Amino acid sequence: MTDNQTNPESFKWVGKRVKRIDGPEKVTGELKYMTDYHFDNMVWGKVLQSEYPHAKINHIDTEEAKKLPGVICVLTHKDIPGFNGFGIVVPDQPVLCSKVVRCTGDAVALVAAETLEIAEQALSLIKVDYEPLEVVADAELAMTPSAPRLHPDGNIHSQVIIKNGDTEKAFQEADIIVENTFYSPRQMHAFIETEGGWGVMDEEGFITIRCPGQYAYRDRMQIARSLAYNPERIRVISSPIGGAFGGKDEITVQIYLALLAMHTNGRPVKIHYSREESVIAGIKRHPFKVQMKTAAKSDGTLLANEVRAVGDTGAYASLGGAVIALAIEHSCGPYKIPNVDLEGFCVYTNNGIAGAFRGFGVNQVCMGIETHMDMIAEKLGVDPIELRKKNVYHQGEVSSVGHVVKSSVGTFKTLETAENCDLWRNREKYKTEVSEPWKKRGVSLATSFHGIGMGIGLPDYGAASIELLQDGKFLVGVGCEEIGGGNSTVYAQVAAEILNCDISNIHVVQGDTSRTLDGGTVTASRSTYTGGRAVATAAPNMVKLLTQTAAEMLNLPASKVTINTNYISAEGKKLTYQSIYQYLFDNRKTTRVEGHFYLPKEKEGIEGSGGAPHHLYGYLTHVVMVEVDTLTGETDVLRVVSIPDAGKVMNPQGLEGQTEGGAVMGIGYTLFEDILIEDGYHKTRNFTDYIIPTIRETPLIETFPVEEAEATGPFGAKGIGEVVMIPIIAAIMSAIHDATGARIYHLPATPERVFNALKSLKNKKTQSAR
Amino acid sequence: MTDNQTNPESFKWVGKRVKRIDGPEKVTGELKYMTDYHFDNMVWGKVLQSEYPHAKINHIDTEEAKKLPGVICVLTHKDIPGFNGFGIVVPDQPVLCSKVVRCTGDAVALVAAETLEIAEQALSLIKVDYEPLEVVADAELAMTPSAPRLHPDGNIHSQVIIKNGDTEKAFQEADIIVENTFYSPRQMHAFIETEGGWGVMDEEGFITIRCPGQYAYRDRMQIARSLAYNPERIRVISSPIGGAFGGKDEITVQIYLALLAMHTNGRPVKIHYSREESVIAGIKRHPFKVQMKTAAKSDGTLLANEVRAVGDTGAYASLGGAVIALAIEHSCGPYKIPNVDLEGFCVYTNNGIAGAFRGFGVNQVCMGIETHMDMIAEKLGVDPIELRKKNVYHQGEVSSVGHVVKSSVGTFKTLETAENCDLWRNREKYKTEVSEPWKKRGVSLATSFHGIGMGIGLPDYGAASIELLQDGKFLVGVGCEEIGGGNSTVYAQVAAEILNCDISNIHVVQGDTSRTLDGGTVTASRSTYTGGRAVATAAPNMVKLLTQTAAEMLNLPASKVTINTNYISAEGKKLTYQSIYQYLFDNRKTTRVEGHFYLPKEKEGIEGSGGAPHHLYGYLTHVVMVEVDTLTGETDVLRVVSIPDAGKVMNPQGLEGQTEGGAVMGIGYTLFEDILIEDGYHKTRNFTDYIIPTIRETPLIETFPVEEAEATGPFGAKGIGEVVMIPIIAAIMSAIHDATGARIYHLPATPERVFNALKSLKNKKTQSAR
Repeated sequence: MTDNQTNPESFKWVGKRVKRIDGPEKVTGELKYMTDYHFDNMVWGKVLQSEYPHAKINHIDTEEAKKLPGVICVLTHKDIPGFNGFGIVVPDQPVLCSKVVRCTGDAVALVAAETLEIAEQALSLIKVDYEPLEVVADAELAMTPSAPRLHPDGNIHSQVIIKNGDTEKAFQEADIIVENTFYSPRQMHAFIETEGGWGVMDEEGFITIRCPGQYAYRDRMQIARSLAYNPERIRVISSPIGGAFGGKDEITVQIYLALLAMHTNGRPVKIHYSREESVIAGIKRHPFKVQMKTAAKSDGTLLANEVRAVGDTGAYASLGGAVIALAIEHSCGPYKIPNVDLEGFCVYTNNGIAGAFRGFGVNQVCMGIETHMDMIAEKLGVDPIELRKKNVYHQGEVSSVGHVVKSSVGTFKTLETAENCDLWRNREKYKTEVSEPWKKRGVSLATSFHGIGMGIGLPDYGAASIELLQDGKFLVGVGCEEIGGGNSTVYAQVAAEILNCDISNIHVVQGDTSRTLDGGTVTASRSTYTGGRAVATAAPNMVKLLTQTAAEMLNLPASKVTINTNYISAEGKKLTYQSIYQYLFDNRKTTRVEGHFYLPKEKEGIEGSGGAPHHLYGYLTHVVMVEVDTLTGETDVLRVVSIPDAGKVMNPQGLEGQTEGGAVMGIGYTLFEDILIEDGYHKTRNFTDYIIPTIRETPLIETFPVEEAEATGPFGAKGIGEVVMIPIIAAIMSAIHDATGARIYHLPATPERVFNALKSLKNKKTQSAR
Repeated sequence: MTDNQTNPESFKWVGKRVKRIDGPEKVTGELKYMTDYHFDNMVWGKVLQSEYPHAKINHIDTEEAKKLPGVICVLTHKDIPGFNGFGIVVPDQPVLCSKVVRCTGDAVALVAAETLEIAEQALSLIKVDYEPLEVVADAELAMTPSAPRLHPDGNIHSQVIIKNGDTEKAFQEADIIVENTFYSPRQMHAFIETEGGWGVMDEEGFITIRCPGQYAYRDRMQIARSLAYNPERIRVISSPIGGAFGGKDEITVQIYLALLAMHTNGRPVKIHYSREESVIAGIKRHPFKVQMKTAAKSDGTLLANEVRAVGDTGAYASLGGAVIALAIEHSCGPYKIPNVDLEGFCVYTNNGIAGAFRGFGVNQVCMGIETHMDMIAEKLGVDPIELRKKNVYHQGEVSSVGHVVKSSVGTFKTLETAENCDLWRNREKYKTEVSEPWKKRGVSLATSFHGIGMGIGLPDYGAASIELLQDGKFLVGVGCEEIGGGNSTVYAQVAAEILNCDISNIHVVQGDTSRTLDGGTVTASRSTYTGGRAVATAAPNMVKLLTQTAAEMLNLPASKVTINTNYISAEGKKLTYQSIYQYLFDNRKTTRVEGHFYLPKEKEGIEGSGGAPHHLYGYLTHVVMVEVDTLTGETDVLRVVSIPDAGKVMNPQGLEGQTEGGAVMGIGYTLFEDILIEDGYHKTRNFTDYIIPTIRETPLIETFPVEEAEATGPFGAKGIGEVVMIPIIAAIMSAIHDATGARIYHLPATPERVFNALKSLKNKKTQSAR
């Protein structure tokens, strides 16, 4: 680390409120997303989705469709040159189904045609002879021996078990035990840009795929596997992206585009899903059933936690196994519970497909443990913040899953900040200010955490390049895509800081297998941390290149050379960056440097945990105020305080973007959102009946970051992308209870569910009064 | 294709007896193989192999070993940053075993030390607490329910089934049925250079592995997976190789080298297996049990074939599944049998590890079908060549596995050539010329075929680069390694032919992820075909670059420019290649072109076949004469005629190298070679008791190629590397029968087995005489 990476006082860019470098062209609409492209010679691709959630395919007849004028090609599984499957962990999802369909999102055939209308008509002419099979609609039933087997190894895709201490003994010795079952919804990513993109093959057989994705290099690998094609002959451009949130981590339409591009005689082919197609084919958040039993002593010390979580991954694994593993790793919250017995199942059903989504399984378990923390505090009559402060682990202590947490831990500080914030301190006053007499207000809080980066044993590296350009500016290349989170601005800040230049001199290119190095995926809250560190490793190499070149040009020792904004000086002489570029160019020397970074990992994994522990976690506490309409059951979130520990904050404005976006997404998850699937068929297919929060539902959100600098991060930064939406879920559930006395165990907390909870509460009170 | 690729008359290099370009430095010993390297600061790596063929590991204690002075590191499974497994198809083999060992070739720990002696001593100080488990020593027993399960999904790694027609009916209607069980040995590759190489990590974390292998890019992928490391930061150099024959297709010590290199503070680490270590850890040819039942009509028309083949893959899959699949695809020979019922199993046992080996499963089934052809001919009293000619499929006909063979088919012509060769025509005379009165001679023949390239659905591409060098010569880069087969000379010939230059102007670089493009693996007889086509695709691009540049330099249209040996001319003006290089360099233009090629594939795969059919096959007929010592059972092969159809012969001298080497390897397989394993322990561990043919056992081998030009191949070439060793096996078995009347069904045909066969023949005759 150079000096300017360690002395915050001297920072010019890092930690400042820097305007997003991609902001202007995005807000003006100037930026072309990849699905915005049109070409004169373009053809349209369409995907035939399955008619049934579970059926045998006896025959596919494409003859009529092929005959339709304007149709360029009709492809089925027989046209796949390579492996007919994809999936980040296990490639169990067919590119095009051959013998069986397992969900209505399954693709059966592809069409390319002169117009979208012809392509659609061609789809209707493909005759598929299906033989419907029994539908597996419930994850618990899927695990019973009598359920139809959806995959050769049965319906349990993966199982995760973590045990520590002696839970049986602990429950015997406990003073308080709370036990509940929680149900969580199938949330949709609801990105603005649905899945799409375009592909083209040039006359030499080089294939270019432009398709929003979260890991261009891995997408390329999956394409190459299905095409049995040399990956070096495929270019994947995956950025910019009109929203992803995990929903574009897995392959979406990349392989379809590549397959079609092989059959369109060099013409570009475009696919762009309608919202309905997107809802049906796209992955969702895993709905969970979580049974939890938590024990504490009368002094509030947590004694034991027992968890059984079942996640419905739908027809294919995608990242389901990893989601369950992360859920189990985080199922006890950021606490030190000495006795735990945790078990998770990732289960196949015919309910669409579930995969990666912001929070990645932690949302579903946080609502359990934090509700239990609340119930224990209530039973003991202690302050919920005090109870948490008593039980949180600190840096160097052993977590509930049994490993010593060596990286920075901010929970305690976030709780202290919560305690001192206006909303919490004056909560009793605010609660009285109801808007109508039949409405009730509650203020509550919850805390959570989220692993940053991949777990143990998984590749986790950052890579960046910096190139000096002819105009004296710098091109920073990072594999990690800009999926809207603002990492491009962070990379520019890091580069500008170390290169000692104005941020306008930094251009950033991301997500392009031909222009950026392989730097891993944009998930797991890792892109600021890993990409930032990679840029921070590359930049000093550029400084060295500039200094040494200037020294050579001036015939002076490098130690005499100083890097200034826009020029280099030594003993009164000045050199512009343009002149340094020209010198390097004339002398045929490289103008490009690289930086590489490998995430530190724990030495030993937790057996059976499927990737735990992480080396690094981000922490966050949410305080919320809700108002519940006791006549309708409707809940409004009126105020949110978000207190993240993301390590050093690179860009307060960017952090606020994340905390605000995350809070709103958490509100949607808790109160409104659920993709309903009945017998394998999607009942919810568009925003007409999938309600997400709009500006009307967006409350005042305040952000008070706690900066627990992480020694291994760039300038001390960790990650933030996921934890911002997690504790708010439990906080809202708890605030509803604070307002009304009713507990919600099944999300979303729709007016109907809240109303019913209020009703049964009333009945209970009436009964106990008798 | 340019004109000089299609008119054989004008060829200057292709089809000529060109001296191997790698010959001089190999025969003089000047070439350094990778295990020959030594460095001053080098450290030695050693691998701790398992003490037991099957055992639980309770604990591994490395403390004492670590304390030994001179020890640099001791690593176990806990030190693997990524995925603890490797394997080309299924990564089921642990890099370092953690809980269980499944064969004595399993690696349990790694050591690096200042000297080899210290490393060896350190190994002896590692205490592994094993709990021996029941050993699965037999593949048939492994498939029974009571056998211990070696892998989670049971002991059957894969099953292949191909069915066509109605065998039951065919057997009822047959005039002749022969039915036998064949057993084949566990052959060793017996390459001169045992597994080894070295690895080093530089101060920036870039890892270089120099280790003989058959696919540098795939080795890199497997290393990266286990190291959880960015593959772009790993360079694998895999060529030159002191022999491979398939035995270096799978990972050997590459991952160990990379792991150790991470712990030696930048010092290079070298591993080089002793022959014993190589025998125990290295893969072998799958021993097979083949049950075969073949039916024919009285006119010799083949009616049906039923095959059940069981291959013992040992403890891990490696390419076992593919070997079984290829065996089944080829189990009916190059014939058109309308009714077949073929089934193959690849089974796990504790008998070492089996994988890729020249012939790749076809050897083991060819001995069955060809022995049956012989027996049918004998029963019908027809000429064995006539019987074969009657049943072979021709180009455009349907093979026994039921696909139309569209590529060139040379079997019929090879049989005709056999019929007309001296050995066959004068066989009766030669048979009388026995060296001793108690010796008997037999002459016989067999024919076979072998798929070229990967089967359907697998990636199969060639890629080559050609660079104009400063001295006016050309550097041809091909990913495919020179494993001794002579492909480097073929690449040079192709380039020299199209570039119209002397072959001494061509340098070839192979097998280096930093210097060559990904062009697939050197297996499946594919490297001449795919690499050759890639060079033949790159070379015209270089011609174009030279012509256009010269035209630009001379300010003339490109059509006026002529490429001559060593210079370019146009309208009386001459330009040297050096001057063209200089012009390109000065103008900052590329001096490098690429060529890419994708193998044509069949449109539809055969269901359940695991990769069949291939698009392309090579064919070969062997005629052999043997002399059997009736007193000792010893068999000498006295003469071999090898009649390959490898398409256009690129280099007759190279082809002869292959046919001669293949024949000798076939002789060793048939008569001598077998790695004996009892209860999981290797009884054969070195050349002291593993006998391979020497020059003494090498007979006169004549090669009469039949050139059935393949339209898709470079200049019409196909492949040759594997089929050269296949039919000779059955031909020798048949010649022993011709000489003595005794049939051998269990290889190797050791003196003991032949003697016993003669004895039981005598008993039988005596009995029938009574």
